[in-house]
Amino acid sequence: MNQLLLDIIRFRDERNWKQYHNPKDLAISISLEAAELLEHFQWSDWQEAAQDKRDDIADELADVLIYCFTMADQMGFDLETIIRSKMEKNARKYPIDKAFGKKDKYDTL
Amino acid sequence: MNQLLLDIIRFRDERNWKQYHNPKDLAISISLEAAELLEHFQWSDWQEAAQDKRDDIADELADVLIYCFTMADQMGFDLETIIRSKMEKNARKYPIDKAFGKKDKYDTL
Amino acid sequence: MNQLLLDIIRFRDERNWKQYHNPKDLAISISLEAAELLEHFQWSDWQEAAQDKRDDIADELADVLIYCFTMADQMGFDLETIIRSKMEKNARKYPIDKAFGKKDKYDTL
Amino acid sequence: MNQLLLDIIRFRDERNWKQYHNPKDLAISISLEAAELLEHFQWSDWQEAAQDKRDDIADELADVLIYCFTMADQMGFDLETIIRSKMEKNARKYPIDKAFGKKDKYDTL
Repeated sequence: MNQLLLDIIRFRDERNWKQYHNPKDLAISISLEAAELLEHFQWSDWQEAAQDKRDDIADELADVLIYCFTMADQMGFDLETIIRSKMEKNARKYPIDKAFGKKDKYDTL
Repeated sequence: MNQLLLDIIRFRDERNWKQYHNPKDLAISISLEAAELLEHFQWSDWQEAAQDKRDDIADELADVLIYCFTMADQMGFDLETIIRSKMEKNARKYPIDKAFGKKDKYDTL
Repeated sequence: MNQLLLDIIRFRDERNWKQYHNPKDLAISISLEAAELLEHFQWSDWQEAAQDKRDDIADELADVLIYCFTMADQMGFDLETIIRSKMEKNARKYPIDKAFGKKDKYDTL
Repeated sequence: MNQLLLDIIRFRDERNWKQYHNPKDLAISISLEAAELLEHFQWSDWQEAAQDKRDDIADELADVLIYCFTMADQMGFDLETIIRSKMEKNARKYPIDKAFGKKDKYDTL
């Protein structure tokens, strides 16, 4: 993950794009790429989309991830640290015995 | 990244949630978490948000990433492979000499 | 529609909120409300969501519309004019004989 | 607003699109159009975007509205009723004396 992050940062810096990458516009960018990912499922059931648009879905998911990595760098976050920290919070919000097999939000469990 | 992915999958499976995680609803979930991330920047300039809401931003960015990892698992994508493949495409769409210091989209460069 | 718009504007002005309502943050707000609307369909098929969450869906759809009306006011757009103008463009992108019964995007029709 | 709604519905029915317009995919569509609207503000301050992309912003805002109208029809909502009902709820969440000049969410007012 670290080497991948370094390569993403180098891609950005070779193009001198850091100047535009303030966290607010990066949060917007993550939303926009998430929408492009979601667009491949519009008007289709998931089986049809997952089969017909597999490569497009991979590409758009990758773009979401690339902007997430870029934002982590810009905010000074360590990726593994923030993910593990959030997983601990999620484990407290969704304890196994209460959340097992349920799709409800934590506040209605 | 592989250990992290395994831990995210174990979190899901301990709660028997895989049954809900079809790719279309995961794409929706990535969009929703991206919106929660963006919400921390609503009505603020990025400096104010990045300072006052640093921990919330880390948490929501982590949630976007967790769903991205989950979707990659569900679709059978290798994370590093799809990111490196997309970076190569992005490099062709944004060649350094054309894209240097510019924020334009590739089709108006 | 005009009276409704006036009432939305009065709601805003009674709270002295116009100062925050620059078009970029309003575009963010429309996205966030659209995500709250979409959240009611997460993990459900549409029949289940449309039945169980009918009132929530109405409320969130209304919030999207309220911000759209606010943005139109802020940008100086007449609502009916921009909708009719876009419908004409959409009619050219999706001519009836080509688009009939098809869910494809205009560039693949 | 009623004539406009009728014209939007006629546009849809002339193309036999109602079959695709279940509320879940319409909620996705509203999100996607909201993202296209937001994209015009990416990497720009609002003054620059509002000036350079005025017509594009009008078009995308119109598309959000068109899908909102379509969804109201599909769900059997009266547009004015749901907007006025939500404004009353918003007025209770944001009473003038508490919310005046503040950008905080209701739960932190």
